[in-house]
Amino acid sequence: MLRVPHGEAVDLSSCDTGSAPVGPQDKSAARSATARIGEHLADLQERLFAASTAGDRRRVLLVLQGMDTSGKGGTIKHVIGFCNPSGCRVRAFQAPTAEERAHHFLWRVEQSLPRPGELGIFDRSQYEDVLVARVRELADTGEIERRYDEINRFEKSLTDDGTTVIKCFLHISYEEQRRRLLKRLDRPDKHWKFSPSDIDDRALWPAFQEAYEIALERCSTPYAPWYVIPSDHKWYRNWAVGRLLLEHLRALGPQYPQAGFDIDRCRRRLRAR
Amino acid sequence: MLRVPHGEAVDLSSCDTGSAPVGPQDKSAARSATARIGEHLADLQERLFAASTAGDRRRVLLVLQGMDTSGKGGTIKHVIGFCNPSGCRVRAFQAPTAEERAHHFLWRVEQSLPRPGELGIFDRSQYEDVLVARVRELADTGEIERRYDEINRFEKSLTDDGTTVIKCFLHISYEEQRRRLLKRLDRPDKHWKFSPSDIDDRALWPAFQEAYEIALERCSTPYAPWYVIPSDHKWYRNWAVGRLLLEHLRALGPQYPQAGFDIDRCRRRLRAR
Repeated sequence: MLRVPHGEAVDLSSCDTGSAPVGPQDKSAARSATARIGEHLADLQERLFAASTAGDRRRVLLVLQGMDTSGKGGTIKHVIGFCNPSGCRVRAFQAPTAEERAHHFLWRVEQSLPRPGELGIFDRSQYEDVLVARVRELADTGEIERRYDEINRFEKSLTDDGTTVIKCFLHISYEEQRRRLLKRLDRPDKHWKFSPSDIDDRALWPAFQEAYEIALERCSTPYAPWYVIPSDHKWYRNWAVGRLLLEHLRALGPQYPQAGFDIDRCRRRLRAR
Repeated sequence: MLRVPHGEAVDLSSCDTGSAPVGPQDKSAARSATARIGEHLADLQERLFAASTAGDRRRVLLVLQGMDTSGKGGTIKHVIGFCNPSGCRVRAFQAPTAEERAHHFLWRVEQSLPRPGELGIFDRSQYEDVLVARVRELADTGEIERRYDEINRFEKSLTDDGTTVIKCFLHISYEEQRRRLLKRLDRPDKHWKFSPSDIDDRALWPAFQEAYEIALERCSTPYAPWYVIPSDHKWYRNWAVGRLLLEHLRALGPQYPQAGFDIDRCRRRLRAR
């Protein structure tokens, strides 16, 4: 998982989508490593939540972006699935509604942020407004240009307020997307995930890759970096995102709050009542 | 799990909180049965979500109520934990904020309802406004009396709009609560869940049991029934809530939508592009 250095140009075509640069090298090793990571995630998530009950405002926001079929949903199912649903706030961003379009583009994002102690997960995010908006020309150039800086300022204020922001680009190849779309066609229980327009959209692949490169270059900041996750192998993607999340949670080191009461006295009172 | 018949008086003291009236009779059998239930839940939840993408408005709302330590949070962790976090909307209701108090008591509940295809889970709910509000006299008697009917009308409109409402009272004994509170005192990683006021609140136990009996009698309707779940055994509670959820999801019988496109043509186009 490449951490994009601040202000450096990114060449996505040179990132091997089928690689496993660190960590487990095959499916079975990755699966067991991911399950172990999951246990630690669940433990740290509970501590983070517990700490929030004593006033700790810290929280985590995981942003998942990627082309169609890159596995944003699968990552949530297989990685976030290890966590306690009570502490997770998952939000999938679709094409904006009329109400959302009437507001500033960050409005709907602000509504969906994790509260103290929570783990927030964005399936797509504020980045759609510089990705699809750029490729499909949904806003004029000046507006798009302004948005990169607005996103950076927004993420700065989030991190200043105690949010750890982790942004993952799930990177798959053009060929892998073809394989996954063909697989969806083969399986009637996957047809609902398919639309013929997904095929048309493949014509826009180079434009989207370019839009991602620009977003990663301009919005990978020291406080909210972008990570490129090689995602042709689902087992690697799950391991890598889980590992990244674990690293950040460990760095936070959330602690169970100390009892602010006399334990022995409580014991005696409870036994008597 | 007792389904409370509409309009019948309920005597909670005669419901054995330590019983396992149907299903598995010990921890290990219950755990494996619950894990099997979990697999079916995950499958049906995905179908429900898939159906919603084709316009199916159906959704499920699981309401969990119970005395302190009855296991509302544990049920979410161990039963809802089997589901895909993307399709779950969990909401814990605390004492209302100033903004919430300024609104009608159902306002905050309406904000938190599941969307089509989702599984909503309430950890506490609109029932707090006829439970704690009654016991602590937070509203006058006439207002509390009106709320039962308002809740019934509200739940009727939810079910008319495609929401399956399942309400579970996690029933524990006075003794079991003592054991669980003492256990929390023994474990530093559980101190954050404890407050000395939990001990004072035990003086209100009979009043709360009575408030529950009234709520169950008046608000167990044919369209949104209440279930009493014997919950002294956590393994039984998890199995029973999982089983109930599964039964309702099975009755809905959500189906993957049919493809609305020419599959072979899509295959050819994809291979060419």
